[in-house]
Amino acid sequence: MAYTFEPGKMYRMPTHFGPSLGPRQGPAGRKFTSPESHHTTSWSVQFLSDPAQLEALLPPCFALAGEPLVTVAFTEYTHIEWLAGRGYNTLGVSFPARFDGQEDHAVGEFLTVLWENLADPIITGREELGFSKIYCELPMPIEHEGETHCIASWLGFTFMDMRLTGMAPAEIPTSAPAPDDGILRGTLHYKYMPRTGEWGAADAAYPVLTPAETPRLVVHEVLQGAGAVQWHEAAWEDLPTQYTVVNAFAGLEIREYCGATITRSTGSKDLSDQRILK
Amino acid sequence: MAYTFEPGKMYRMPTHFGPSLGPRQGPAGRKFTSPESHHTTSWSVQFLSDPAQLEALLPPCFALAGEPLVTVAFTEYTHIEWLAGRGYNTLGVSFPARFDGQEDHAVGEFLTVLWENLADPIITGREELGFSKIYCELPMPIEHEGETHCIASWLGFTFMDMRLTGMAPAEIPTSAPAPDDGILRGTLHYKYMPRTGEWGAADAAYPVLTPAETPRLVVHEVLQGAGAVQWHEAAWEDLPTQYTVVNAFAGLEIREYCGATITRSTGSKDLSDQRILK
Amino acid sequence: MAYTFEPGKMYRMPTHFGPSLGPRQGPAGRKFTSPESHHTTSWSVQFLSDPAQLEALLPPCFALAGEPLVTVAFTEYTHIEWLAGRGYNTLGVSFPARFDGQEDHAVGEFLTVLWENLADPIITGREELGFSKIYCELPMPIEHEGETHCIASWLGFTFMDMRLTGMAPAEIPTSAPAPDDGILRGTLHYKYMPRTGEWGAADAAYPVLTPAETPRLVVHEVLQGAGAVQWHEAAWEDLPTQYTVVNAFAGLEIREYCGATITRSTGSKDLSDQRILK
Amino acid sequence: MAYTFEPGKMYRMPTHFGPSLGPRQGPAGRKFTSPESHHTTSWSVQFLSDPAQLEALLPPCFALAGEPLVTVAFTEYTHIEWLAGRGYNTLGVSFPARFDGQEDHAVGEFLTVLWENLADPIITGREELGFSKIYCELPMPIEHEGETHCIASWLGFTFMDMRLTGMAPAEIPTSAPAPDDGILRGTLHYKYMPRTGEWGAADAAYPVLTPAETPRLVVHEVLQGAGAVQWHEAAWEDLPTQYTVVNAFAGLEIREYCGATITRSTGSKDLSDQRILK
Repeated sequence: MAYTFEPGKMYRMPTHFGPSLGPRQGPAGRKFTSPESHHTTSWSVQFLSDPAQLEALLPPCFALAGEPLVTVAFTEYTHIEWLAGRGYNTLGVSFPARFDGQEDHAVGEFLTVLWENLADPIITGREELGFSKIYCELPMPIEHEGETHCIASWLGFTFMDMRLTGMAPAEIPTSAPAPDDGILRGTLHYKYMPRTGEWGAADAAYPVLTPAETPRLVVHEVLQGAGAVQWHEAAWEDLPTQYTVVNAFAGLEIREYCGATITRSTGSKDLSDQRILK
Repeated sequence: MAYTFEPGKMYRMPTHFGPSLGPRQGPAGRKFTSPESHHTTSWSVQFLSDPAQLEALLPPCFALAGEPLVTVAFTEYTHIEWLAGRGYNTLGVSFPARFDGQEDHAVGEFLTVLWENLADPIITGREELGFSKIYCELPMPIEHEGETHCIASWLGFTFMDMRLTGMAPAEIPTSAPAPDDGILRGTLHYKYMPRTGEWGAADAAYPVLTPAETPRLVVHEVLQGAGAVQWHEAAWEDLPTQYTVVNAFAGLEIREYCGATITRSTGSKDLSDQRILK
Repeated sequence: MAYTFEPGKMYRMPTHFGPSLGPRQGPAGRKFTSPESHHTTSWSVQFLSDPAQLEALLPPCFALAGEPLVTVAFTEYTHIEWLAGRGYNTLGVSFPARFDGQEDHAVGEFLTVLWENLADPIITGREELGFSKIYCELPMPIEHEGETHCIASWLGFTFMDMRLTGMAPAEIPTSAPAPDDGILRGTLHYKYMPRTGEWGAADAAYPVLTPAETPRLVVHEVLQGAGAVQWHEAAWEDLPTQYTVVNAFAGLEIREYCGATITRSTGSKDLSDQRILK
Repeated sequence: MAYTFEPGKMYRMPTHFGPSLGPRQGPAGRKFTSPESHHTTSWSVQFLSDPAQLEALLPPCFALAGEPLVTVAFTEYTHIEWLAGRGYNTLGVSFPARFDGQEDHAVGEFLTVLWENLADPIITGREELGFSKIYCELPMPIEHEGETHCIASWLGFTFMDMRLTGMAPAEIPTSAPAPDDGILRGTLHYKYMPRTGEWGAADAAYPVLTPAETPRLVVHEVLQGAGAVQWHEAAWEDLPTQYTVVNAFAGLEIREYCGATITRSTGSKDLSDQRILK
């Protein structure tokens, strides 16, 4: 007898071994809610860029919102509950955008791409959440003589160097309650899944939102200082699946660097509040 | 101005940097057709199992076909054209099945899971083709004193050991033309993509077929001998995203080993003939 | 003209490119003295064993000292100055011993072996210091549900699992000044370098001491709790260069576990006070 | 009772677990003599350089011999018997030199440095043989559109790219018997082991020879074509233990490239004929 899909359970390929295992569903449907999950350190650098260049990275349903301020963030996660205590690193590039749809209005950081150094969260993040996650190597940042050096490479080709210097303790920001203006707030993404055999068509193509609320998040330390990021232009031979991504960033105008931040925190959420924008 | 999707071009997340790059679409839409692409060595072991156990791994639209003969295949690919000459390894588990739909009838190996040790082909294979690809480490097989030892692990937890011994040259099989019986032949898969926010619902869920024809494939050498495969039962803590997969194989009855094969070949195809079964 | 060795400078193979670079000599003879060097976290487990088994691991010039208390310590180092900010992990096994020579008397932990996951400190440590360093993989410990799990493997073969539980803050020990009894204190090693061509003879074979004093060391946090360590017996095929080491530990009697400790500290020294015992 | 060293057996740190395990001594003193050991592929590029620059890389006891022809060779070894079937890769740089001592006269390639991507053979090779082995990452060469690309990096910093093109089958050279002129032939090295505590002094410092004879070596295929090698100048921060080595090669004049060779062979020897030159 062939198996049947259990109603109400989440599935992911391969579907043949029962409901999926991941951040939003553990063994026997278990949820992951530990406040101790996710020990997080994030190193980020911001700069003002050319608004026209950023707009050209937005899918039709989004528009630039406010200043053309690009954030490049390298993040280390450890103690992840759904990975039974393991961790991984990420590198994301975002800028502020807004969505004005038939039903929903939303503003937030538009996450153009999120590199991760572990395939399992890449797969769940792309398919369940619509995050534009792809793979690269993200070794632990090197700290030396007051400088932190974050590196990203793919099969040995280094495509980004980010450096933070002069980091000094800063006030931990208190998150003001969001204004009650009917506008959704969070991280913006565009989910796209190609249709098999009908090349160029999609099984799914829709904007999605990661709501900003993260009740279990506790920020322990914030440092601020200066930073810079350098992208290394790549040939197809260097990055055959990603050179267009890296070269877009290498070609972004840097009008002015706007500082660097290191944030240490604990707590996360399972992102089961991820939703389609309509 | 936001970007627009170029009609007729394939896309994959992130869609914001132009058409996707992968096996079926290179820079400027280039196709990959080199007969030199894919230098392949495959080590496989077969055994007869319990048909009821195998049927329980089949989605509703498939049925067991013929003998309950499981094939475990560890494969090394190098010289891959779409990766600009790089390679990766895979580990697949399959058994014969059939599909009888409203329009299509197909028989072939049902590929329950395909581990790969590189995220880029995992992503393209899952999303464009519907292969049940997941990640693990697949180091090069160890050859010593006439035995070849293939190993699979995930973040250090070894979950499979396969050993081949007494491998002697065998005749290279000539592929007979498929009978003209209207039945499709190839590898069978079940594509499933979850829908964001509507947990338990799917953006896509359909059977797919990789047609058997591979005109550029040239088999250079076939060796046959004996083999055995051992799966190591895992706790959730050991393999938090995959223990159900490994434990299903660890629990499969091995009624009789049916030999081992090593095959060396060159040539492949871009799998753009992958199709939905209806 | 061939090069000549600069007098007073340290050298290491290859000697052809100028004085060596390492912990005790940087570019242009620079010393590494930053108090910020070495951010260290150490996870250790102790147990009482059979004194006769431990004595059998001692070279002729050493004797067991006091209780047969074995310490297994997994240590993570980051921010290492001589590596320009990089780090590495180690796994050591030691027990208390004494040396009574013609000139020197010394007591301390006898370091039977120190695995490290980076070749550069292995080479300098063996050749310059006489540490019995060998290589293995030492991934970051996994912390989950109150348990820390340290793992050691070699080319994928896991040979040790160590687990610490119930770790609670403890007092930071104040290091009492060593008694003025003429006895040297520190870590004991036996340096041995084989002579080329005269197989079985040695270029060097002598006991060495790492003096205990580490003025720049600052301990920030100590946690104590329970722990256990498990060694996995190996065949020659599993660990062809190290199975005798691992099997010796796998065969050690564990009479009683004596607790586990986590220590976080900063500061180190360059070990240029390493000395031969006479 | 402390252990004693077994006479006639080879030892290496840690000496506490019995005689050493390595290429020249296996379990119970076993020798490794299989003609199937070492499946080898070597990619090499040669160029003429400035003789004065090469002489400056020679220890006092050696002199340049003949043309200043530098060979850079990237080699993949698999099926290594003493590693129970595993393998590793190497990258060596050599040029012809001669030794005229009080007793011995020798000519051959002077191996300035040999990078390897596995610590175990680095340790045995340095200490037992006097090879100037150090560590780096040496991924499998990338073959694409008729070009083979060999890469060397250290913790992610790529310091060498070598490319071979237009490789065509060539005659397999027959090794003529060495002339009976009393001159030793093989690979030349300079072994140096520092003395602990007496910084700048040596426990051992002597020239050594790897005799050329390798009776079990069978060359299966030779290809010849063109090639080029590029070294990337490094700061201390990039390669804190090796930047002087890489920068010496980056600064070598390339007067004329002299072709590239790919050689496939099987068979090796245990190098127990390695000897001190006097």
